[in-house]
Amino acid sequence: MKSLVLESPGVLKLTDMQVPEPEPHERLLRVTHCAVCRTDAKMWSQGHRDLRLPRILGHEVCVVPSDSSGRFVVWPGTACGTCEYCRKGFENLCSAMEILGFHRHGGFAEYLAAPADSLVPVPPELPGAIACLAEPLACTLNALDRVGAAPGERLLIYGAGPVGLLMALAARSRGALPFLHEINAEKLARSHDFRGQIGAELHREDRPGDYDVAVNAAPAWETLGAGLRNLAAGGRFCVFSGFPAGDPVPAGLINEIHYRQLVVSGAYGCTRDQMREAVGILCAFREAAQRLIEDTIGLPRVADAFSSILSGMVLKFVVAL
Amino acid sequence: MKSLVLESPGVLKLTDMQVPEPEPHERLLRVTHCAVCRTDAKMWSQGHRDLRLPRILGHEVCVVPSDSSGRFVVWPGTACGTCEYCRKGFENLCSAMEILGFHRHGGFAEYLAAPADSLVPVPPELPGAIACLAEPLACTLNALDRVGAAPGERLLIYGAGPVGLLMALAARSRGALPFLHEINAEKLARSHDFRGQIGAELHREDRPGDYDVAVNAAPAWETLGAGLRNLAAGGRFCVFSGFPAGDPVPAGLINEIHYRQLVVSGAYGCTRDQMREAVGILCAFREAAQRLIEDTIGLPRVADAFSSILSGMVLKFVVAL
Repeated sequence: MKSLVLESPGVLKLTDMQVPEPEPHERLLRVTHCAVCRTDAKMWSQGHRDLRLPRILGHEVCVVPSDSSGRFVVWPGTACGTCEYCRKGFENLCSAMEILGFHRHGGFAEYLAAPADSLVPVPPELPGAIACLAEPLACTLNALDRVGAAPGERLLIYGAGPVGLLMALAARSRGALPFLHEINAEKLARSHDFRGQIGAELHREDRPGDYDVAVNAAPAWETLGAGLRNLAAGGRFCVFSGFPAGDPVPAGLINEIHYRQLVVSGAYGCTRDQMREAVGILCAFREAAQRLIEDTIGLPRVADAFSSILSGMVLKFVVAL
Repeated sequence: MKSLVLESPGVLKLTDMQVPEPEPHERLLRVTHCAVCRTDAKMWSQGHRDLRLPRILGHEVCVVPSDSSGRFVVWPGTACGTCEYCRKGFENLCSAMEILGFHRHGGFAEYLAAPADSLVPVPPELPGAIACLAEPLACTLNALDRVGAAPGERLLIYGAGPVGLLMALAARSRGALPFLHEINAEKLARSHDFRGQIGAELHREDRPGDYDVAVNAAPAWETLGAGLRNLAAGGRFCVFSGFPAGDPVPAGLINEIHYRQLVVSGAYGCTRDQMREAVGILCAFREAAQRLIEDTIGLPRVADAFSSILSGMVLKFVVAL
């Protein structure tokens, strides 16, 4: 099968590989679409904590089982179902976690093997190119589940890239009021129609104390200080995007958490329930979600897509197989 | 009336002042006991964000109204009842907050004036010297309310000073399992009986991933890194004690929050409901609570008590008036 393999950071090879042989608990799945995530681009350029090389990347996939029984998106995790995290409902933190496209071969290939219980059904009316956005959308739902986003609450999102925009969609679907902060004019222009369609406003300047929740959908340290400053006392900040190593955090920020009873919560990955909810949201907002797709490409263009994504100016690339 | 006034950092004066004239919504209260808080000592040595000078300090008070109608502890806050924080139940974050012994004259004097609705009744069987521990105990209940401490959950408390020990008592009263980390042998010796009586174990060395909740009852930066390390994924850290200015926090700690879905919550002050609960706990654990009192002293010895408290070796001093 045609496969795109990351052999080492920077070295991506389009090659032929054997079709995987599924384990007894797995199914063989033909990939129809696999969206390109910023994390894929980051793994290509610099590696990742959870990446094991060589690897077929791609964890935002829409598939058809080899026996053509339905169409599914794939929860990229694995969960033992018995560890303390699985028992508490945090299956994305499972002690035995192996992530599709990180520890196991992912969706930048014609076929993949995944556990049968990781499949989330996709209704016929939802195109595969949109369906594969269910995974990143589910990750934003996980963020909202971590910090809470009640109807009517004001949510400040740093970054109007694809994930920030999906976060706004997730917030809107829960009845919260999303506000996007974005300093890049190009990104603002590209997201204009999507924002209008889901009713996400722009946050243009500091409004100290004006938000219930803030989230960083951008890996910039400034978002932490600015986010905490813009929260009302008792407000919640979600560390959704990891921060670059090195820059230490000023002590004053932590004391701000103390005095103003702020909450800082981390979010990483998503659960199957969140993926099911995401599929439903994509069905309801199909027309808006379509606007998030920058281009549909083939495997040979993935390396170019990585470069564009790292430039930070583009929306979502989807690989069609 | 005899009053102990902090005129400027380091300058404490025992003097005669006029008995305060209560406003219409206030009552004139005769102080029977006022416990000495580490924050009082800190205000004396270096000032505090919320301190307005000159000031009669003291915010852990037991009083008898001037008409001798009952006995009360005093919630040191004021709450407008109408701002967004009051409406959400965060009266300790009220926009118009003025704290007893910080913005208003406190309990190191024979009388004070406080709002009638700040009085929390003390049952006859609870001695005043113990009752005035209700305020710091309520602050630890506020910490547990911020991070949650369910029955059976393992709670790691950094610092076995008076506040760490009260936190252990609060945790125990909620059915959680408190573990105390303390590096100072003297503090361990002094808290031995109390710990035994409430069933708080010692945490002697790092047990990564072993706790549901961690709290700093000590203003040491090491507690943040160690606390996060000892939490299970999804665990909660409470910033209970403010940290010293200056030392920045390593970036890696914030990414740890992201990847392991940790929560860092601030806690500051307490509410009237928490003070009511605290009085109940002190009644139930009266004998243990008695062991937290280092000595009962008069106003002239408060400056010495401040020095002892800042040395970090003593339990609770209570001023009897």
